[in-house]
Amino acid sequence: MRSKEDFLKSLKDGRNLYYRGKLVEDITTHQILKTAALHAAKLYEYADRVYEDNKMGKMSKFFKVPWTSQDLLDRHKLIYDLTMYCNGVFNISQAIGSDAIFALMITAKQVDRKYGTDYSKRVEKYFERVAKEDLTLATAQTDVKGDRSKRPSEQVDPDMYVRVVDVKSDGIVVRGAKAHTTQSAVSDEIIVIPTRVMRDSDKDYAVAFAVPANTKGLKMYIRPIDEIEGNSSSVLSRKDYELETLTVFNDVFVPWDRVFLFKEYDYAGTLAMLFATFHRFTALSYRSATMNLYLGASKVASQVNGIENEKHVRDDIVDIILYKEIMRSSAIAAAVYPVNMEGIAVPNPLFTNVGKLYSNMHFHDVVRDLIDIAGGIIATMPSQEDLESDEGKNIVKYLRGSVDGEERAKVLKLAKELGASTFTGYLLTGMIHAEGSMEASKIELFRSYNFKEAENLVKRVLS
Amino acid sequence: MRSKEDFLKSLKDGRNLYYRGKLVEDITTHQILKTAALHAAKLYEYADRVYEDNKMGKMSKFFKVPWTSQDLLDRHKLIYDLTMYCNGVFNISQAIGSDAIFALMITAKQVDRKYGTDYSKRVEKYFERVAKEDLTLATAQTDVKGDRSKRPSEQVDPDMYVRVVDVKSDGIVVRGAKAHTTQSAVSDEIIVIPTRVMRDSDKDYAVAFAVPANTKGLKMYIRPIDEIEGNSSSVLSRKDYELETLTVFNDVFVPWDRVFLFKEYDYAGTLAMLFATFHRFTALSYRSATMNLYLGASKVASQVNGIENEKHVRDDIVDIILYKEIMRSSAIAAAVYPVNMEGIAVPNPLFTNVGKLYSNMHFHDVVRDLIDIAGGIIATMPSQEDLESDEGKNIVKYLRGSVDGEERAKVLKLAKELGASTFTGYLLTGMIHAEGSMEASKIELFRSYNFKEAENLVKRVLS
Amino acid sequence: MRSKEDFLKSLKDGRNLYYRGKLVEDITTHQILKTAALHAAKLYEYADRVYEDNKMGKMSKFFKVPWTSQDLLDRHKLIYDLTMYCNGVFNISQAIGSDAIFALMITAKQVDRKYGTDYSKRVEKYFERVAKEDLTLATAQTDVKGDRSKRPSEQVDPDMYVRVVDVKSDGIVVRGAKAHTTQSAVSDEIIVIPTRVMRDSDKDYAVAFAVPANTKGLKMYIRPIDEIEGNSSSVLSRKDYELETLTVFNDVFVPWDRVFLFKEYDYAGTLAMLFATFHRFTALSYRSATMNLYLGASKVASQVNGIENEKHVRDDIVDIILYKEIMRSSAIAAAVYPVNMEGIAVPNPLFTNVGKLYSNMHFHDVVRDLIDIAGGIIATMPSQEDLESDEGKNIVKYLRGSVDGEERAKVLKLAKELGASTFTGYLLTGMIHAEGSMEASKIELFRSYNFKEAENLVKRVLS
Amino acid sequence: MRSKEDFLKSLKDGRNLYYRGKLVEDITTHQILKTAALHAAKLYEYADRVYEDNKMGKMSKFFKVPWTSQDLLDRHKLIYDLTMYCNGVFNISQAIGSDAIFALMITAKQVDRKYGTDYSKRVEKYFERVAKEDLTLATAQTDVKGDRSKRPSEQVDPDMYVRVVDVKSDGIVVRGAKAHTTQSAVSDEIIVIPTRVMRDSDKDYAVAFAVPANTKGLKMYIRPIDEIEGNSSSVLSRKDYELETLTVFNDVFVPWDRVFLFKEYDYAGTLAMLFATFHRFTALSYRSATMNLYLGASKVASQVNGIENEKHVRDDIVDIILYKEIMRSSAIAAAVYPVNMEGIAVPNPLFTNVGKLYSNMHFHDVVRDLIDIAGGIIATMPSQEDLESDEGKNIVKYLRGSVDGEERAKVLKLAKELGASTFTGYLLTGMIHAEGSMEASKIELFRSYNFKEAENLVKRVLS
Repeated sequence: MRSKEDFLKSLKDGRNLYYRGKLVEDITTHQILKTAALHAAKLYEYADRVYEDNKMGKMSKFFKVPWTSQDLLDRHKLIYDLTMYCNGVFNISQAIGSDAIFALMITAKQVDRKYGTDYSKRVEKYFERVAKEDLTLATAQTDVKGDRSKRPSEQVDPDMYVRVVDVKSDGIVVRGAKAHTTQSAVSDEIIVIPTRVMRDSDKDYAVAFAVPANTKGLKMYIRPIDEIEGNSSSVLSRKDYELETLTVFNDVFVPWDRVFLFKEYDYAGTLAMLFATFHRFTALSYRSATMNLYLGASKVASQVNGIENEKHVRDDIVDIILYKEIMRSSAIAAAVYPVNMEGIAVPNPLFTNVGKLYSNMHFHDVVRDLIDIAGGIIATMPSQEDLESDEGKNIVKYLRGSVDGEERAKVLKLAKELGASTFTGYLLTGMIHAEGSMEASKIELFRSYNFKEAENLVKRVLS
Repeated sequence: MRSKEDFLKSLKDGRNLYYRGKLVEDITTHQILKTAALHAAKLYEYADRVYEDNKMGKMSKFFKVPWTSQDLLDRHKLIYDLTMYCNGVFNISQAIGSDAIFALMITAKQVDRKYGTDYSKRVEKYFERVAKEDLTLATAQTDVKGDRSKRPSEQVDPDMYVRVVDVKSDGIVVRGAKAHTTQSAVSDEIIVIPTRVMRDSDKDYAVAFAVPANTKGLKMYIRPIDEIEGNSSSVLSRKDYELETLTVFNDVFVPWDRVFLFKEYDYAGTLAMLFATFHRFTALSYRSATMNLYLGASKVASQVNGIENEKHVRDDIVDIILYKEIMRSSAIAAAVYPVNMEGIAVPNPLFTNVGKLYSNMHFHDVVRDLIDIAGGIIATMPSQEDLESDEGKNIVKYLRGSVDGEERAKVLKLAKELGASTFTGYLLTGMIHAEGSMEASKIELFRSYNFKEAENLVKRVLS
Repeated sequence: MRSKEDFLKSLKDGRNLYYRGKLVEDITTHQILKTAALHAAKLYEYADRVYEDNKMGKMSKFFKVPWTSQDLLDRHKLIYDLTMYCNGVFNISQAIGSDAIFALMITAKQVDRKYGTDYSKRVEKYFERVAKEDLTLATAQTDVKGDRSKRPSEQVDPDMYVRVVDVKSDGIVVRGAKAHTTQSAVSDEIIVIPTRVMRDSDKDYAVAFAVPANTKGLKMYIRPIDEIEGNSSSVLSRKDYELETLTVFNDVFVPWDRVFLFKEYDYAGTLAMLFATFHRFTALSYRSATMNLYLGASKVASQVNGIENEKHVRDDIVDIILYKEIMRSSAIAAAVYPVNMEGIAVPNPLFTNVGKLYSNMHFHDVVRDLIDIAGGIIATMPSQEDLESDEGKNIVKYLRGSVDGEERAKVLKLAKELGASTFTGYLLTGMIHAEGSMEASKIELFRSYNFKEAENLVKRVLS
Repeated sequence: MRSKEDFLKSLKDGRNLYYRGKLVEDITTHQILKTAALHAAKLYEYADRVYEDNKMGKMSKFFKVPWTSQDLLDRHKLIYDLTMYCNGVFNISQAIGSDAIFALMITAKQVDRKYGTDYSKRVEKYFERVAKEDLTLATAQTDVKGDRSKRPSEQVDPDMYVRVVDVKSDGIVVRGAKAHTTQSAVSDEIIVIPTRVMRDSDKDYAVAFAVPANTKGLKMYIRPIDEIEGNSSSVLSRKDYELETLTVFNDVFVPWDRVFLFKEYDYAGTLAMLFATFHRFTALSYRSATMNLYLGASKVASQVNGIENEKHVRDDIVDIILYKEIMRSSAIAAAVYPVNMEGIAVPNPLFTNVGKLYSNMHFHDVVRDLIDIAGGIIATMPSQEDLESDEGKNIVKYLRGSVDGEERAKVLKLAKELGASTFTGYLLTGMIHAEGSMEASKIELFRSYNFKEAENLVKRVLS
């Protein structure tokens, strides 16, 4: 199997990365960004990641297509466990990419059946190569969208959704940009899929494909990593974080065998929604693991503050437990009652969306819980530079709680990072918007819910 | 198998029932109370209730001891489906009783092992008879408690928790009272178990046993069924409801083979908690079914009011969906990851308690959702007597919505029953307190949660 | 000034009242309904209700037109205090009617100015008579509405909003029905105003007027008083409650001097909104007083249960305090910063609507708080008939808490009435819908809020 | 009156300030910190800040002792308006200090009366100097506290609360540290008061005094200003922010005329609570102004995103309006019904605490509202350095919404600062903990609430 070193080496492939206005020559040695690369590489260090596939041989568990409930339960656990391995920070290296491939496998069959295309073969071939070479994959779905009140084809600037601008004999040329593509800068491949339902008039936007990260014309603008650069006392982010990019396609050429949807606009929404379902199942799995950071930090902070037996502390912590375990419950229920599509076990969309919407709605309560326990000091404590200076002792003396100042300061630094730093704002936004907004989820839940059982009951009672 | 008629006949056994200050001669013909009896009897009409047990032969599915996850998933479905069969109203006839028996099976083995007692045999024998005779069972757990700030043995009146007042060669004599025993008045048997942890000083209160409902000295005071008597336009409660009693043991004799715990105070808490876990799993199963009443009534009310496309209606309904499906998720997760005790699959206590606490905390939101959709009219609409009077036409004309007044009035009557009647208050209280208060659940969740994973993560990050 | 006896006598005037399908001959002696009449009459018993008006002489304080902040603060206190005098139950006898008259005074001047009408004189004359004769007034605003997705003139049945069906030389003829008119059956006068904005096509519906309660063609269908008839242990409702009616106008004639708006559709919305503002200010005043019932019952219930020092009890009670005092704050702020219209001090619409919306959104939390403290027993306790029967002693023994069973039972009966009875559902619905739905309030708040200050700040920061 | 320049010059007085491990030579020219100094100086630029006092002549309005409701209403408006003048950021220059002086004025009289001390004269004299010289004042109240489960005198390290370590003929020597002292580093004076109730055993901790900021032995460790250093795209914080310090008293000498409480432990709690009341009133005033940032940014972000007519956007914005206006209502009500103490109008503690607790409990909802509207882009957008680089155009093209990318980027930068940056975490923590934790407020509200009215009502109903 591929090693961490192989992977890191492969990132030096001439890809176009920008950080704070400068071209990044080698991300694996960049002082700030290398952490994201090393985080991605942890996949290859994780002991329990390989299984023996009947057909394909030794393979990453992430590429195990889920055929059964047990496969989904295993996948839930894999994502949860790898997140824990990475200090509570999601490792997407092969997670979201495989979500996308599973969705493509299903949609490709549906499109082929209707239109006589050969997408299934292309997807299968792509999947085999990816699995065999043990590649990492980012998925770029969310278009930059422009004016949200208008459809893709109605925008003032037609490039607000990624679109086909030219068709050649050997492939297509695409233009546009995708927002917040996670870990793209440290992935081997970028898979691109539509973000919404399309109509006939939008068909140039109904396109799915994959490109290597160093494809010509592809530019990735990495968000500032203020978790580190803006918080000298950060602890977690110095070990693990994920980056996102604005991913711009400046007339990028894609050969036909990497094109998985091409103007079949009636399947854009299906593909988008199917990916979302797989991906939200993944999200429930990693988010519940991430919550251990908040749960643990709250518990430990209550101890070092000397308030662990206070009832409001207990209420805060029970609130975090509920949040975490409801996410896990939803994921498990989604795995136990999957929907079979083209033979693949798709996580139950209802339970998946219920858990996902719940997770969007209540993370800010978790942040409040932690802050309530940790105390105001996480917003006003002196900097790491202070602690390390000659004045450090005079400061540390006064940070004492039920333990000495040195020990408490360590806990407070993590509590600050989680509850009162740029990381807090970043995660708050992520928990509300990643994998689709709350509004989108409500629309979807209401639209797709089967009200028959409830309506029939009422009719029966009234009869 | 036992028939509905057999069951109903057996209720005329001289049991001491009181309703509104009067002795109830025959509950099966009592104008108001017969509905509770007929509701209980629906168990025997339910088509899909029997299975073939390897050992015991044809048997009620409720008495199938859960050995596996699948057994628990089946039990979840059985309770959900029977609730739906009973118009969304829980049918406890054999549900809570079997919860208690499963808990007794486990505890009996533990006590026997420690104290060399023979409770297991007694429980087994009792179970076999109950299963063979296909009996209905109520479980009386919650003592009346007196001063909540004091333990059983510290009360001014020593009878505030059911206790042993005499020991004879052939059995024991018990005194005290249990509050809100569901469907006791229409059950064959009453199983009695402790409600809390006991200490040495409380050992007279550490007692579990079973008695037939017509046992001498047993008196049951049935709550007023204001759902019917206080709401002439009620619809649901005329078809199905559950009654509860204050169940008083005036020096009741219990023969030894029906005594399942006797002064082994160190197991009182274990038994109480184990029953609670089974019972809360049951609760998640029926409560999610009951929610179809609120979901369906909200949906249909939005239609007849002409507001089904309003976004606030959608938000209300999505809120109900979340509530219902999070309960279901928790139950499913609890079934999938059970705890094995003495060979029996106990629903996962964490997921069970998380779902249960969530269900306590948010039902009042569901009520608000329904009221928001149904409109103020459910509080002020004229009575059923008005609708049936000569003036009925003049009233119905003005109850029109997007449908005519007659059709809308039917829906409004149900919406009133669910959202603005005595049933509302009854259910609100039940959803908050049945199967243990919120405070009890928080204490339990906090006490039993395994914080190691989260604390270790934090330690690792800080190291 | 008018006496209680005068008032009660005046109710025997041949008005058409129906209760449970029967004509009510004399509401002041009707076994159930007389309580509503006596409740209304409490106005006349209230010691502190009269003041000396410069112009009109001795007069009810309710008819004091608010010219200043202090007048509004006094009115807030008057309503709060009279509610307390009536055991926490709002006394609308002259409250909502005067709200309507103040709104009419303002609108009349505006319409007269634009259309050269003489409504001001009519309103003034009507007001003088009402004030001089010290009458009670109900206000009928909410039409039955039919299909909520359609305007008045678009309904299948044109009578879904009260409308002018004929114009005569001496007055107009109106038809239609108003929903949930509070205390109409025990008021001298019924004031009718529009419920919404109207367009040209709806102008037959743009009508405001007043009629005596015994006007020919007027029929009032009283809601069932299940608070008493459906809860034999109720305490509060046996002393005070309000009734509502479906108020039907079967071609009722209104002489011109009692017509206050006639087809000036462009002022229908103004009048509706202006009344709503006065009325919501009134609502904040009585609702905060009513909350003393929940606050007191929760406090006392915690004492008799022996849990008054538990922290979850404290949290529940603090929650009720917040609810009550935020309503009071809003009312006070609304009084302190009124809007001057035609010389009259109109309660600040922003603070009024903020407080009102808050009060709609959170009353169900108050109910949950009380239930949490009172315990499950309020849903399952035996009936009043049981307590009064020979078995009473056997029951009361087991209702003991930190006090004896008799004393605790009294508290529990009130807690049941407030938290687990038909009154609960009635009040829940009222607190959500009375004085306008949550959705209506949100629309209004968003529409009328002055965003300039905030937007300018942002512009300044960005510049 | 004192000018901005005078003030800034006075800050160069040799005070011991540390920032990121280094001594700050001149805070008025420090690249990062000067903003805090200039922010403080805005007080002196604010046009409407002076009034003519009968006794003292021309004076800052902040030093106008509130004798009446109108004085408090004026003070509320003064703080609100100055906050708006400072771009929505609170200007404490004379606000919190005058809060402390008002509290000292009252307590001094009480202590003098009981103990025959002359604190009143000292406070008066101090106040006159401060007012005459138009000084700025910080107030240091919150001790670092050590183990929260122990009292001051029980701590392992006795310096966890500021205490008297020596008494000399001309004054006292104090040691200890205060946490998060706002704007101390840019204030002329530091007023020190106790943070809690004290007992006899804690009397060395019962001390209040004032010192100039450059007093020997006083060291101030300034928190890192990550709002600027950790968010290159920040907008607001480059114009205005407040700093906090860990304020350490290394055996600081205080002459007697600056000592305002000395071992009269029974007044430590009174003083702490009285200051808290004034200060929370101040907090309600500035916090409601600050909310204009969130309200305005949400409104403008909805516009540039093209979603301003979406209903979920409206719900978010109405939620922010409620939050802001409930704070304002509480402040107004507190001003209108003050408590008179020693002639001074103290803001009503009930309304003040209700508003304050509400403001702690719901700010995280406001953050969620803004994030929901602004979109995920605020967490992942490229840095300011990117926007200003050669690649800027390629990025800005794709940031277009309903307006062009340049305009939208400006709004997004502010939305990021408010919703997804270190400022978010800082403010979240501040809104939860500043002016006392939620738990402290609940304890206080429950303890001090007058339940008599509610309890009497219940007794009356039950009688």
